[in-house]
Amino acid sequence: MKKYIFELTIKVRDYECDLQGVVNNSNYQRYMEHTRHEFLESLGENFGAMHAKGVDAFVSRVDIQFKNSLRSGDTFISCLNVKKEGPKLIFDQDILRCPDNKLAARGRVEIVVVEDGKLTRGEYFDSILNQIKKE
Amino acid sequence: MKKYIFELTIKVRDYECDLQGVVNNSNYQRYMEHTRHEFLESLGENFGAMHAKGVDAFVSRVDIQFKNSLRSGDTFISCLNVKKEGPKLIFDQDILRCPDNKLAARGRVEIVVVEDGKLTRGEYFDSILNQIKKE
Amino acid sequence: MKKYIFELTIKVRDYECDLQGVVNNSNYQRYMEHTRHEFLESLGENFGAMHAKGVDAFVSRVDIQFKNSLRSGDTFISCLNVKKEGPKLIFDQDILRCPDNKLAARGRVEIVVVEDGKLTRGEYFDSILNQIKKE
Amino acid sequence: MKKYIFELTIKVRDYECDLQGVVNNSNYQRYMEHTRHEFLESLGENFGAMHAKGVDAFVSRVDIQFKNSLRSGDTFISCLNVKKEGPKLIFDQDILRCPDNKLAARGRVEIVVVEDGKLTRGEYFDSILNQIKKE
Repeated sequence: MKKYIFELTIKVRDYECDLQGVVNNSNYQRYMEHTRHEFLESLGENFGAMHAKGVDAFVSRVDIQFKNSLRSGDTFISCLNVKKEGPKLIFDQDILRCPDNKLAARGRVEIVVVEDGKLTRGEYFDSILNQIKKE
Repeated sequence: MKKYIFELTIKVRDYECDLQGVVNNSNYQRYMEHTRHEFLESLGENFGAMHAKGVDAFVSRVDIQFKNSLRSGDTFISCLNVKKEGPKLIFDQDILRCPDNKLAARGRVEIVVVEDGKLTRGEYFDSILNQIKKE
Repeated sequence: MKKYIFELTIKVRDYECDLQGVVNNSNYQRYMEHTRHEFLESLGENFGAMHAKGVDAFVSRVDIQFKNSLRSGDTFISCLNVKKEGPKLIFDQDILRCPDNKLAARGRVEIVVVEDGKLTRGEYFDSILNQIKKE
Repeated sequence: MKKYIFELTIKVRDYECDLQGVVNNSNYQRYMEHTRHEFLESLGENFGAMHAKGVDAFVSRVDIQFKNSLRSGDTFISCLNVKKEGPKLIFDQDILRCPDNKLAARGRVEIVVVEDGKLTRGEYFDSILNQIKKE
């Protein structure tokens, strides 16, 4: 069984389903964003507060594979792992349908950090990620 | 303290905030829809399953007052009461910010029920609502 | 035939339709917001630029009646009129399906203006609305 | 100058911008979906009508690179090319900001076709794509 450093349980909301009767693809990207931001909060940081400080994490690339559609009434676990590659944060994110843990979607999301309008080496996340290693 | 027959705790997702830094107004309507559908599930019914049976609950009117903006990081309780007025279901829905219970938004939402394309007298909900009275 | 001071033609996007196969109700509120902001641009003002100047227009109330559902493939005209009532701007907004002009939704939207965090008497819009009267 | 077989001009809607003041990443995926569906309509097919016939095009993978953020007030051209690779339709999609044609986002989107619940070899699109070659 694959291990993740962060997991969030989410229920599908019906307005997220489109006329095909399944969750619209763009919402998986939203679930993944929300999961990253909740992960950040679990480490004592908040996305809105970061923006107010002049530090913005921007997504530079998303690569999402859609495997099994989620539907009205479904609950799922949104899981992630993270590592640093050069200046980028790389998130590996899986969305697993409950209760059978079937893979609904798998994403790789690259993040860069901009401070006061300038691209950084991602130092902002070094101390945050160090917390995880210690745990 | 006002009493509600159903309450759901929800966390703001950052993508729901707009460039003003607060939750975009349209999302309160979405929170309220999700709350009604979760209320329905608590009574053993599912919105998607109803649609598959040819029974559709349609919103005929929403009236929402916005009192205090929700922001990134906020958690809130989405509460509702419901009654029948003629063929309509009338939901009174309050969104209360945590932890101070400040009123963020108050909505009155009217629902009609369409079966196989025809407007009904709302009989579909009679048995469901009878459950509540018994409790 | 009712007259409007601003009209915008919009095409339904499929991701705006939900599992009932019709445009989700919350999206009418979004169409109406977008129409107000385009109206503002037609008068030489931009919502994002206003926010950057410390002036925010906030919706204090929406009352929307849903009459005929829009569907995949539909085009519609989003129309508005506006007047001032005390410190509030009141928008009357109709959404008319093309090509038969059938009323899809009718909204009344109240707006208040906050400058540097303080509720104003709405003076900000006086000069903008004066432009319309002159035309 | 790169050539595309389909182009659609779109204006940013303010509710698509998030608290960072730029278009939220998930909306580029939505712009790209809308562009594919409008492309389909230009060829005489409609996504909702396909679903009603039991034919569903599902996204199996999206890979989007975000280059330059779109903001409130921006207009952009959403462009695409398409080819078939085995059973998949592959869309190359560029989003170019107006009026400087700066690349805002670049996507590669894979589509599979499911008929009556079964994965197909994508024959459904063969005749549609043949139209393009003839033009």
